[in-house]
Amino acid sequence: MKISCSQEALLESVNVVTKAVPVKTTMPILECILVKAFNGQIILTASNMDLGIENQVKDGEIDEEGIVALDAKLFSDVVRNLPKSTVYIDTDEVFHTTIRCDKALYKIIGKSGQDFPALDPVRITDPVVMSQLALKEMIRQTAFAVSDNDANKMMTGILFNISRNNLRMVALDGHRISIRNCSLKESYPDVNVVVPGRQMNEINKILSSESNDMVSVYITPSKMIFEIEYTIMVIRLIDGEYFNYEKMIRNEFNTKIKVNRRELIEGVTRATLLVREVEARKNPVIVRIADDQMELIGNSAVGTMNESLPIVKEGADQMIGFNPKFLVEALKAIDDEEVTMYFFDSKSPCFIKNETESYIYLILPINFNNVR
Amino acid sequence: MKISCSQEALLESVNVVTKAVPVKTTMPILECILVKAFNGQIILTASNMDLGIENQVKDGEIDEEGIVALDAKLFSDVVRNLPKSTVYIDTDEVFHTTIRCDKALYKIIGKSGQDFPALDPVRITDPVVMSQLALKEMIRQTAFAVSDNDANKMMTGILFNISRNNLRMVALDGHRISIRNCSLKESYPDVNVVVPGRQMNEINKILSSESNDMVSVYITPSKMIFEIEYTIMVIRLIDGEYFNYEKMIRNEFNTKIKVNRRELIEGVTRATLLVREVEARKNPVIVRIADDQMELIGNSAVGTMNESLPIVKEGADQMIGFNPKFLVEALKAIDDEEVTMYFFDSKSPCFIKNETESYIYLILPINFNNVR
Repeated sequence: MKISCSQEALLESVNVVTKAVPVKTTMPILECILVKAFNGQIILTASNMDLGIENQVKDGEIDEEGIVALDAKLFSDVVRNLPKSTVYIDTDEVFHTTIRCDKALYKIIGKSGQDFPALDPVRITDPVVMSQLALKEMIRQTAFAVSDNDANKMMTGILFNISRNNLRMVALDGHRISIRNCSLKESYPDVNVVVPGRQMNEINKILSSESNDMVSVYITPSKMIFEIEYTIMVIRLIDGEYFNYEKMIRNEFNTKIKVNRRELIEGVTRATLLVREVEARKNPVIVRIADDQMELIGNSAVGTMNESLPIVKEGADQMIGFNPKFLVEALKAIDDEEVTMYFFDSKSPCFIKNETESYIYLILPINFNNVR
Repeated sequence: MKISCSQEALLESVNVVTKAVPVKTTMPILECILVKAFNGQIILTASNMDLGIENQVKDGEIDEEGIVALDAKLFSDVVRNLPKSTVYIDTDEVFHTTIRCDKALYKIIGKSGQDFPALDPVRITDPVVMSQLALKEMIRQTAFAVSDNDANKMMTGILFNISRNNLRMVALDGHRISIRNCSLKESYPDVNVVVPGRQMNEINKILSSESNDMVSVYITPSKMIFEIEYTIMVIRLIDGEYFNYEKMIRNEFNTKIKVNRRELIEGVTRATLLVREVEARKNPVIVRIADDQMELIGNSAVGTMNESLPIVKEGADQMIGFNPKFLVEALKAIDDEEVTMYFFDSKSPCFIKNETESYIYLILPINFNNVR
């Protein structure tokens, strides 16, 4: 293989695919970036088996077609530190590779890449087409709620559900549920698959924040494929039936309040300072709703904290305890200046949702014993 | 104690003194910030025994004089998260403390502070007066070369030497020496003390980058005291005689070269990518000087790297190995576009210095065995 391209384009490409390089793996070939030069295209590939990313280098010339696998950490360090000039990569028949740029010359040992797992980005069905920004926002607003504990694999996934022209994404971890809905421009056949949340966060880093940039999403029985300009991302679905989360959503409530979102985040954060050191399960933030005030109470061995926020209330008074992290994360995923919260009683989940139900956040309460 | 001040001024003060709060300590009182309100001044103090910092809150009112010690981590977290409004701090006779700001109210448990070690910033002698920026630069340009190993306490210190109107700072770790000279505006009596490098780095973070802001430095037999507006920093000297580093400085050389500093840093950094994983002692960067070229050679199990830089040379050819980290750190401490390097032979130290010797960096070479 003999290729050349600009350092900038190569670095951009390396930065995209390294998001799929596994931190730890028992398969040494996955520690590599695969460099392919065929049919006038220079393509880099990386994979951790759950997520594979292919990116075409934006410029470049091929003098001799070929393929080589190069250690991902070393290759990306080298490319990042090369001068902003033309990079020449040259591989011999035993995969010894020279990388030359200006006066710098590297000789490194590559691998054949023949046992690198094929991404196999089958794109035979029609894609779902949506704005990259919309998908990016949906991921940001749900993925934080997946479980980081692999014990229950399904809880580490995000439900990706399409019904006609509505895309819904759901994440839950046994203590909370995050639901987001988004209208697509067209209607599509039904989709109901579960994608790994951690890998979706990596894809999120690659998606553009320009609302005019589109992404094509292909869904197969075992994979979801995201295609954007120069890049194809293949994500392996989680097998099985997702939770019946809908039975957790109830519309009855005893108390409905409106509160300024920013003030509530800041108040809960202040209450959190005291409960930080100890397990939040034992020292929840207590929310006491009475008249037109929401009182936040933090309580631990080091001291107490109190803060009152003005609210607009309908219905009964309430006193209920929460893990402050869950409250803050849900509130941060919302863009509205004011949020509406629904309470039933101190043993039942609280809901934060808007009128159109484009978002629903459910948070289970925590028992608390004595307050002051 | 009953005081009030703006959240901004209090936070600024907390941020300054926390630089002296120890990460680990066997004296629980040192985990606190001491808040003192006397004679119209609100003063915060923190100490790790080697470094003590006192800062006066820029605004504020005292309704009742007093003193209290508050947990540094909790107090700074609370102050950082309070709204930008007036903060009221109120302590009762058993040091239970309320902190109130807008609608937020904290009650935390304080300590008497009577066993907090006195900083005792004796300022009876005349101070050395210099620009904060000049001191800041001197610390940046030498402190990196102190040893991070406490086994030899003296090596963790920086020599602070004044002779007439010349301030010299020296740091060394057994493999390299950094020397900086700076002219003071006036002459002073001789000073020859050793200050802990780690604590000087903390002081560095507090010094201003404005060349017109001055610092007064008081030197006593056991302490050095730095006084700037609102802040007094007291640093405990290291006891004993500093190394006779001057006998290491030789002026004979066989080779003198001039090279572009930025290009050399980039080239050595590129060579470092290959030796990263293994001990630099075994895989030095090799510098080969011949004709008008300096060749950099990196060599390890993963591959080789070569790069040639144009130089202006006087004297013999050379081939010499270095720990790349030591070369890069010395080069980064220099501001000149071009540096002059002096070599004797492959077993003798290399010197990087300028004509006026306002800086001298000495780096010991490393033996190397086989190259290519």
